[in-house]
Amino acid sequence: MQLYNFFNSSSSYRVRIALALKGLDYQHQGVNIRVGEEASDSNLRLNPSKGVPVLITDDGQALSQSLAIIDYLDSNYPDPLLVPATGSDRYRVLELANGIASDMHPVNNLRILGYLKKELGVSDTQKSDWYKHWISEGFGAVETLLSRHGHGHGDYCFGQAPTLADVCLVPQVANALRFGCDLAGFPRLMAIHAHCLEQSAFQRSAPTEQPDYVA
Amino acid sequence: MQLYNFFNSSSSYRVRIALALKGLDYQHQGVNIRVGEEASDSNLRLNPSKGVPVLITDDGQALSQSLAIIDYLDSNYPDPLLVPATGSDRYRVLELANGIASDMHPVNNLRILGYLKKELGVSDTQKSDWYKHWISEGFGAVETLLSRHGHGHGDYCFGQAPTLADVCLVPQVANALRFGCDLAGFPRLMAIHAHCLEQSAFQRSAPTEQPDYVA
Repeated sequence: MQLYNFFNSSSSYRVRIALALKGLDYQHQGVNIRVGEEASDSNLRLNPSKGVPVLITDDGQALSQSLAIIDYLDSNYPDPLLVPATGSDRYRVLELANGIASDMHPVNNLRILGYLKKELGVSDTQKSDWYKHWISEGFGAVETLLSRHGHGHGDYCFGQAPTLADVCLVPQVANALRFGCDLAGFPRLMAIHAHCLEQSAFQRSAPTEQPDYVA
Repeated sequence: MQLYNFFNSSSSYRVRIALALKGLDYQHQGVNIRVGEEASDSNLRLNPSKGVPVLITDDGQALSQSLAIIDYLDSNYPDPLLVPATGSDRYRVLELANGIASDMHPVNNLRILGYLKKELGVSDTQKSDWYKHWISEGFGAVETLLSRHGHGHGDYCFGQAPTLADVCLVPQVANALRFGCDLAGFPRLMAIHAHCLEQSAFQRSAPTEQPDYVA
């Protein structure tokens, strides 16, 4: 398999973690979204949504959308499953993952911040306030969901093994820290984040460990 | 079951279509997000993400996030399945649905448009340009994905029966039309939209048919 991705893209980071947890090898293909490579002809052939990541499967299919890609991986490489097959953990995992993937990441990604700056001429302070506002709103909801439905004594969001919820949480925390957000008000999710970062699959998937990383 | 939702919310509309396609009865509980009811104490108890929809299941669970809710419905009321259980249609349905649910809806929903106006002071023209830009980008990608992977002669996005892709597409088109977007450049998705609106389940789920509808 090949993964077209960018080291700092949190949706790319999700798929890297999923591949690592499943022990799957792949070729890393860097797409530099800082200089617009996501809109190049070659990337548009793979992904008309002008984004990363794209997974090229062993039979040559090009798949976009990180949550759809991870569902594909769960279907074809189910050891371990990242979304529990049944039960209340299934919908709590999907609820938390979709909360991050829909309510948090899309409103703070590079194309949105670029539009705010280039088209609307907002100041750096306004852009930073925008970013921090949606992080605070989103992680506030995540923290409450974990307090209600998390297992409490688990090391991960929902129990003793990582799920799609952790796969979405860790990259979102990484982004928030990079943008200087104060996350002290979210002790549950930060404890989970710290535990995840002790695990090899999460470590190997981190932005700094990617071949296209630049400081 | 009870559905806390708002007539014009496209994520609410998705869940209404899913319930109607499965022939499931529910109590409609209106949450007026135009006047901030999503942030009321009573709604926050149901949904810490300050949003709609929330499904209250027959055993009293409160579920948020429309795609997680629809997965719950598919698991518990599988006739008909809205996400195919296996095969390439499964990941193409999820790819298209997640493209709408992550790339389009979140950046144009009421809370974002409200922030643009109240916090950033953008003009009505700038707000309209923002809205139309993300619709154009998103539906451009949807149209290309349908041309590559849609069944061509199917009445729906992927074949002869509605899936989660159609469930996400129809409310997004409804919103775009309400905001005055020109959708002539997207003939495939508009033909699918027109076909869906001929079906009773889609008709009954429309904003104008809801008890909380106001013109």
